[in-house]
Amino acid sequence: MGRRKKGRDGKPGEEVGITAAKGDDFSEWYTQVVIKAELADYAPVKGLIVLRPDGYSIWESVKRSLDARFAAAGIRNGFLPTLIPESLLGKEKEHFAGFDPEVFWVTHSGDTELGDRLALRPTSETLAYSLYSKWIKSWRDLPLRINFWNTALRAEIKATKPFLRTSEFLWQEGHTVHSTKDEAEEEVVRILDIYKKVVEEELAIPVLAGRKSDSEKFVGAVYTDTIESMMPDGKALQMGTSHFLGQNFSRPFGLRFLDANNAEQFAWQTSWGVSWRLIGAMIMVHGDDMGLVLPPRVAPIQAVIVPIYYSASDEEAVMAVAKRVVAELEDAGVRVHLDRRAGLTPGFKFHDWEMRGIPVRIEIGPRDVRGGSVTVARRFGGQKSSVPADGISPSVVDMLKEAQSAMLEAARKRQQDMTHAAETYGGLKSVAEAGGFAVAPWCGRAECEEKVKEETGADVRVVPFEGPAGGGGEGGGGGGEGGGACVVCGMPSASRPAFARGY
Amino acid sequence: MGRRKKGRDGKPGEEVGITAAKGDDFSEWYTQVVIKAELADYAPVKGLIVLRPDGYSIWESVKRSLDARFAAAGIRNGFLPTLIPESLLGKEKEHFAGFDPEVFWVTHSGDTELGDRLALRPTSETLAYSLYSKWIKSWRDLPLRINFWNTALRAEIKATKPFLRTSEFLWQEGHTVHSTKDEAEEEVVRILDIYKKVVEEELAIPVLAGRKSDSEKFVGAVYTDTIESMMPDGKALQMGTSHFLGQNFSRPFGLRFLDANNAEQFAWQTSWGVSWRLIGAMIMVHGDDMGLVLPPRVAPIQAVIVPIYYSASDEEAVMAVAKRVVAELEDAGVRVHLDRRAGLTPGFKFHDWEMRGIPVRIEIGPRDVRGGSVTVARRFGGQKSSVPADGISPSVVDMLKEAQSAMLEAARKRQQDMTHAAETYGGLKSVAEAGGFAVAPWCGRAECEEKVKEETGADVRVVPFEGPAGGGGEGGGGGGEGGGACVVCGMPSASRPAFARGY
Repeated sequence: MGRRKKGRDGKPGEEVGITAAKGDDFSEWYTQVVIKAELADYAPVKGLIVLRPDGYSIWESVKRSLDARFAAAGIRNGFLPTLIPESLLGKEKEHFAGFDPEVFWVTHSGDTELGDRLALRPTSETLAYSLYSKWIKSWRDLPLRINFWNTALRAEIKATKPFLRTSEFLWQEGHTVHSTKDEAEEEVVRILDIYKKVVEEELAIPVLAGRKSDSEKFVGAVYTDTIESMMPDGKALQMGTSHFLGQNFSRPFGLRFLDANNAEQFAWQTSWGVSWRLIGAMIMVHGDDMGLVLPPRVAPIQAVIVPIYYSASDEEAVMAVAKRVVAELEDAGVRVHLDRRAGLTPGFKFHDWEMRGIPVRIEIGPRDVRGGSVTVARRFGGQKSSVPADGISPSVVDMLKEAQSAMLEAARKRQQDMTHAAETYGGLKSVAEAGGFAVAPWCGRAECEEKVKEETGADVRVVPFEGPAGGGGEGGGGGGEGGGACVVCGMPSASRPAFARGY
Repeated sequence: MGRRKKGRDGKPGEEVGITAAKGDDFSEWYTQVVIKAELADYAPVKGLIVLRPDGYSIWESVKRSLDARFAAAGIRNGFLPTLIPESLLGKEKEHFAGFDPEVFWVTHSGDTELGDRLALRPTSETLAYSLYSKWIKSWRDLPLRINFWNTALRAEIKATKPFLRTSEFLWQEGHTVHSTKDEAEEEVVRILDIYKKVVEEELAIPVLAGRKSDSEKFVGAVYTDTIESMMPDGKALQMGTSHFLGQNFSRPFGLRFLDANNAEQFAWQTSWGVSWRLIGAMIMVHGDDMGLVLPPRVAPIQAVIVPIYYSASDEEAVMAVAKRVVAELEDAGVRVHLDRRAGLTPGFKFHDWEMRGIPVRIEIGPRDVRGGSVTVARRFGGQKSSVPADGISPSVVDMLKEAQSAMLEAARKRQQDMTHAAETYGGLKSVAEAGGFAVAPWCGRAECEEKVKEETGADVRVVPFEGPAGGGGEGGGGGGEGGGACVVCGMPSASRPAFARGY
């Protein structure tokens, strides 16, 4: 923070702002953006972070958008406690084994040792379903569809990274129960579609939607559908998952219901979640050497006004215009902020807001005021233009919309450029090593997948539902269909998954 | 749940619905309402509850209302993790000692024993301020005002009760830092006023605002301001607190800033919170023998439509009207639900929605349809009337508004009736034993307060800021002023607090 202070006292130097280039040291660049743009900071416990208001505001935007879509689909929210008794957590053995080494255990309250140890929720399937089994008696109680906004706690042993790998993370977890298999599978699709829309429309990040391979699915699921995105460093990131649980949990948890014929049946279930790693993806996909670049729809501030004056009379004239612009933009529903911080040069403020990724900067100086106009600079693309001060809001609203869609298009183009068809093992290997998605024919057998993983570090990220990976790139051939011979064993391929190294 | 099923199969009997009278067995009545109206249920760990969608929806309404007011006041939201290292928690000794026996301790992650034990957040002062001390360097960084929506975890040893006493509870905790004492004290007042408005306007519960006695204040605070309400069983409930922390935390946590003259100073702080116990208060204050009575502003459903038909042709006619009414009410912003559950009698549905406290029930039967009208029944007050089906929304909107204000007025009247001036120790004692607030002169000394508590079970709930307790009742005399002689020792009184037994 010492560096920061130096800049804020009006002496911005090279130490202020992001000092690592995105193309040179991606990891250092990422961490600097997170910390210096004040999205998050490290908590005193290793592997834990706190969200500062700008970071939390982005999460709130994602949350609002998801909540509206969940509600429109008839899904409601609930609350589950953090603590789960050990006896319950172990009820579905295979599921539990997947979390075993990551579980935080509470052994004492005050000085008293607890009889049954309590786990801090790594995920809530077991807790939710033990309750659901009490609430569901008949087909009339179905479907039961509840979403929970909470955190999951999983002790990270590997190196941690804000938003991407932390021992506690904000997420939502949805848990639904249905009377038929078909209805549950429709829910899995519906949710993945909501995730895809929110990620693409709000965060301007293109995704590949499809299915995980058996070895990469959620422990306890029959299958896992996923959306995956390619990060600029060539590694794929899992953005959200929607699991078809079949009757894998309803059987051990006794989640039975009486059907319309009064016959007892086990229910069908789904679970699904996205976490704040979406914020990490947003930083990586859109940021540049100056810092954050925020998609307007999730930006805490969409337009910042920097007034410029060096005399009291100029100040009066400039501030009068600035206040009118603020009022007009607020009326138009734009999240606007007037930067009146004293003792900071306009140049410092420009850099500061650029680093924070604010989509539109409006500069108002004495010359602008005399000309009845203001200078508008866009963070994405960097264009500057002069716009009449009165009636400014339609242009700003347009710029925000344009930036939002241009950011998605640019990201889509980059993802396509990083997606390559690979018809041979050598081809797959070189894509994996260079970074990006390698769309390659695969026989579907775990042993071939395992060989790829061991030798190249890449795994099956997703078997895309449709079309060429990346939505029109050079991948070629529907991912769901076969075509060609498995690049590992040469047997007829069952599908064309996107392989990549991942986060 | 067996009982419930019986009713839902069309044979409602005495076992369905609330079987305890509010006036006979308040505690049993309360628990039945919570569970049967499906606001909450018990989690598998003793002392923990889960919120079902209707319960969570009420919390979301409270949250939305607070969030809007916090944002208008310039306060922003953030996120803090659940785990706090033992070393940090103990930094402000007096504060920590207050939570010591209630702290849940994490000692292991997976099979690995942790070096420094981790506490599950009982409250976040220590964690927040260790971070704030990094973030604040100069007066330019102040004020820093962040609110956190999370849970607090405190192991309850005494008997637990949903919403009122649980080992984990949903709340918000605000933590602000200011450069001057005055500014911090203004914040304490501003927040308490927000709490008072939200509790009175949203939950229709009148409050007494004032200051806690020294022995009842938050550990670590210079003083605690509070809002208190009287429950129907004669016990007072603390509804929200706003603490002036002075420099009690800024000193041990090194929360210093450079002022405009470049001199280093310790900052001034506040913290404040309300929890889901507000939902508990809402249940107790408004509920009746039939179950919940929801203030319309927080009701998940404001108007429920029960269609009544016994033939296919009637069904068609009734449903056509029902759908028009739904559309009209939705357009008017009313949260409306059409109860199409099959196999349940209208009578069962009426009782069910009454138990759930839905403010307005609209019955539409064949006779109503022929007359072009519908029957509207109000949960609060119980009036039934016939209203034209077309253009129904203004009457429903009015009924909701009227119910909201009538509920507050009725609750205010009851609170006033339960508030009594006591000029003698005997008078105080008999009020304390009968239940209610006893407004009595007090010298301000802890020994007199302690004597009252030991002998009557009542403590100083609040020294009201103004006027007679209850806002116009027979309490008489401003609570902040003295007047009279201490009912315990006879010395001149310093104030007229409201004494009561409490939750």
